[in-house]
Order: sequence, then C-alpha cells, then structure tokens
Amino acid sequence: MDRKQVAKATTKVISSYLTYQAVQTVLAQLMETNPTLARWLHSFSSRSILQDGEVYLLALLAENQELAFRIMTVREYLVEEIMDDLPEMVSHDIKHKNSQHRKQQLEKLSQLSIIEPSSHLESSSE
Amino acid sequence: MDRKQVAKATTKVISSYLTYQAVQTVLAQLMETNPTLARWLHSFSSRSILQDGEVYLLALLAENQELAFRIMTVREYLVEEIMDDLPEMVSHDIKHKNSQHRKQQLEKLSQLSIIEPSSHLESSSE
Repeated sequence: MDRKQVAKATTKVISSYLTYQAVQTVLAQLMETNPTLARWLHSFSSRSILQDGEVYLLALLAENQELAFRIMTVREYLVEEIMDDLPEMVSHDIKHKNSQHRKQQLEKLSQLSIIEPSSHLESSSE
Repeated sequence: MDRKQVAKATTKVISSYLTYQAVQTVLAQLMETNPTLARWLHSFSSRSILQDGEVYLLALLAENQELAFRIMTVREYLVEEIMDDLPEMVSHDIKHKNSQHRKQQLEKLSQLSIIEPSSHLESSSE
C-alpha cells in the first residue's frame, strides 16, 4: 500500500465532498433569497458531475461565474471550519465501528454455541 | 449550515472511503498469496454496497468473518497512517484549486476583452 497515494486520493474525495456540501449550503441560502436561481442551480447540479468537485466547478464557471465563485468561497470556509476536528472524529468513528462489529460477531458466535449444545442435548434425549 | 452535521457527514464519507481503500489493500495482498480468495472478494465487493463501509462490512462478516476482520484492521491502520496530514492537504488542495479556477476565469475574461475591442476597430474601419 502506498501511503502517499492513499492520502492523495482521500484528499480528492474530501475536497469533492466539501464542494457538494458547499453547493447544498448555497442552495439553502438561495431558496430564501432567490428561489428561481435556486431551482436553476438544483437542476444544473443534478445534470453535472458533482462526483468530481473540480469538473463540476469548471462546468458551473462556464454557465454562472458568480455562483461558482460563491460555492468556492463556501467550500474554503467549510474546510477551515471542520477539517481540524476530522482526524480525531474519523479515528474514533472507525475504532468504535470496528469494536461494535467485533462485539456483535462475538455475540452471534456465543449464541450459536449456546444453541448448538442444547440441540445436541435434544437430539441425544430423543 | 450546521457545522457539526457537515463534520459528521464528512466523517462518514471518509470512513467509508478508507474502508474501500482497505479492501483494495487486502485484494492486492490476496492476489499474491491466495488468488482464488482474491477473486471471490473482488466479486463480493462489486456485488455489495461498498458505498457504505459499515453495510459492506456487515455483509462480509456474514460471509467471511476472517476477511472482514482483516479489512477492519487495515482501515484502522490506514486512519492512523494518513489522517493527521489530511487537514493541511485538503485545505491546501481547495485553496490551490480555487485560486487556479479564479486565475483561469480572469484569463478567459481578459482574452474576451482583447478580442472585443479589436472586433470593434474592424467594424468601424469597414
């Protein structure tokens, strides 16, 4: 496993996801101030490839520069707001979920071993 | 925008993505040591919902506990390895891309303003 490559790919995924979240934020603001533009942006965002934040922004820059700049500003704000907490949150999330999965699996196995001896007893008493 | 909600949703996206990367790592290891199992995991992973890491792991735990535990261990290792660098990487990535988009847009606009005056001259000389 190439650590650097994984870090780089993960960075791209987070950047694109924060772009998606920035679009949602701008959409919510526009719903209050300019519903017609909100509808246009909503329709544009479902047509365009929001999977890749940069491809999406390039397409939006060609159609509505002001909106694209606004989304870019919001994603820059978002990254400052949330990024510092994320390493601990993700680390905790993965450790907690792993421990839950292990616990549930152990419970399943111990239930199986409780059921099995009793079914043995039943079959031996027949 | 609810900062906490965005941080939580982003955490889930990263956890799922690191699970996907852990699957790729285990797949690459198995290709060397146990190609038959690698083919099985590859086929399983394209059938199951790898979009949500926890749903994927629950399904895999039911079919092959050892592999699921191995992927869980790898994703825990991955998060320790790369997470600390990510805030700076994502922040740099978004700022750099934003600045590139702004620069390219300015260049486009300045090219347009160069073309426009000359076409004015042409039409006035006709």
